[in-house]
Amino acid sequence: MKIYKKIKSIQSYLRKVASDGIKIGFVPTMGYLHEGHLSLVDRSLKNCDHTVVSVYVNPMQFAPNEDLARYPRDLKRDLKLLRERGVDTVFLPNNSEMYPDGFDTYVSVGSITKIGEGVSRPTHFNGVTTIVLKLLNTVRTDILYLGQKDIQQALVIKKMVKDLNMPVKVEICPTVRERDGLALSSRNVYLSNELRNNALSLISALKTGEKAIRYGIIRCAAIERRMRSKFGEFKGMKLDYILFADVKTFKPVKSITGRTVIAIAGFAGRTRLIDNIIVNPGVR
Amino acid sequence: MKIYKKIKSIQSYLRKVASDGIKIGFVPTMGYLHEGHLSLVDRSLKNCDHTVVSVYVNPMQFAPNEDLARYPRDLKRDLKLLRERGVDTVFLPNNSEMYPDGFDTYVSVGSITKIGEGVSRPTHFNGVTTIVLKLLNTVRTDILYLGQKDIQQALVIKKMVKDLNMPVKVEICPTVRERDGLALSSRNVYLSNELRNNALSLISALKTGEKAIRYGIIRCAAIERRMRSKFGEFKGMKLDYILFADVKTFKPVKSITGRTVIAIAGFAGRTRLIDNIIVNPGVR
Repeated sequence: MKIYKKIKSIQSYLRKVASDGIKIGFVPTMGYLHEGHLSLVDRSLKNCDHTVVSVYVNPMQFAPNEDLARYPRDLKRDLKLLRERGVDTVFLPNNSEMYPDGFDTYVSVGSITKIGEGVSRPTHFNGVTTIVLKLLNTVRTDILYLGQKDIQQALVIKKMVKDLNMPVKVEICPTVRERDGLALSSRNVYLSNELRNNALSLISALKTGEKAIRYGIIRCAAIERRMRSKFGEFKGMKLDYILFADVKTFKPVKSITGRTVIAIAGFAGRTRLIDNIIVNPGVR
Repeated sequence: MKIYKKIKSIQSYLRKVASDGIKIGFVPTMGYLHEGHLSLVDRSLKNCDHTVVSVYVNPMQFAPNEDLARYPRDLKRDLKLLRERGVDTVFLPNNSEMYPDGFDTYVSVGSITKIGEGVSRPTHFNGVTTIVLKLLNTVRTDILYLGQKDIQQALVIKKMVKDLNMPVKVEICPTVRERDGLALSSRNVYLSNELRNNALSLISALKTGEKAIRYGIIRCAAIERRMRSKFGEFKGMKLDYILFADVKTFKPVKSITGRTVIAIAGFAGRTRLIDNIIVNPGVR
């Protein structure tokens, strides 16, 4: 497994790799890897000739009041996991490599970033799109693997890739969950045992929504009411938002007439968690 | 000479071209080609294996009050000139190809776009960076050729390319001028004979500035006063700005201590013209 810390060196290495007609798969991460990340890595290993994983906690996508300083890190373990999986190349830049003095260029996507996570975290998506574009220019991947867990982020990146005519295929892969349904997240490490249990409020509310749709309810307001009631059964949780959006455009919808994302965000103590499912109308 | 109108088709064609280790040179233009554009084309033909020229009048870089509708066009002549020069590939997209319904992604560069042209044309550079990034993703050139005539634009693009880690070399090539010093511009076609003469006010003022520096004046305020006085000798002209900026960063300077751009913009009737020179301190 090759490890690069400099943009220029990984660029010239991968340029040689790609010139042999090799298909490159890329999984960008912030490290502290779990089976969610590794499912993306496995998908890339299966479908591509050469798999690149980046580990970089991008400060630009955190607001000053967020958890950048305490975001969990364990590089040694990450590298061990990636080596075991059979990853070809790892990219480990530092902040001065990604944002040198005088850095001053920004990529933003419009309306899709103004709802959901974009309301609660107004500068978040500009940080995401800017770093992902930089990483895509560094790796020049054929396929970019992203997790459905961060569905809005994945759709924002997909929109950027399309609008900017990048010759990159974006694959969004299923959320990996604990046995009881909790979506894997590096941030779960923040949770005490009690909060860990209450965090099931997110998936429970989502399942309540799914069930309502199975019973034929299609008005989002009615579905949301049931979801809020279920969420309220869990103590110590604070709901941030519930959002219903088209699965391709992430435009908010008022009723379930096609494949729809139900996204939810809430706080377990200080820890902000998100989750989502994709539902179909009339599927019983 | 191959002509493509669709992003996907030129992308897959050039991908094949590049896979043979061929070095690609790219000259983006808005058409109505003159010897300034063609000097960039010639430079690319000389130094690259495959030369791509785009002809596209990008609406996003024009403000509503600007000259988009009357911007001169002569595609037939442009193609003839490019064919004669020996260009390999021409890209001729239309607006719905470059900005399909729902297009919503924007690239912006910070402080360097807030001065000079950015003051007079506040939305201009976002239009430029967004379209150039799209074109660079379409063509995936090795070398991008830009003209010094639009020096601020060239430096903004160079900054974007660097900040976004694009593996592209940006070459800024000298301004081509008429015998009497007028910088070539597609917009010169707007000028009546009388205005054409008054338009020499720009290069005359620039030469006055250069001369002042040769005489040892280094304070920009003093140089600008002489330039304004020279510009004022021409009738029917309105000065927009005179700007002194570092040749690499385009940061404004107050005295000439290193290689410096003197940029000037003014109106000849309704027609807005720009020009610039690069000066060295103490060069007599």
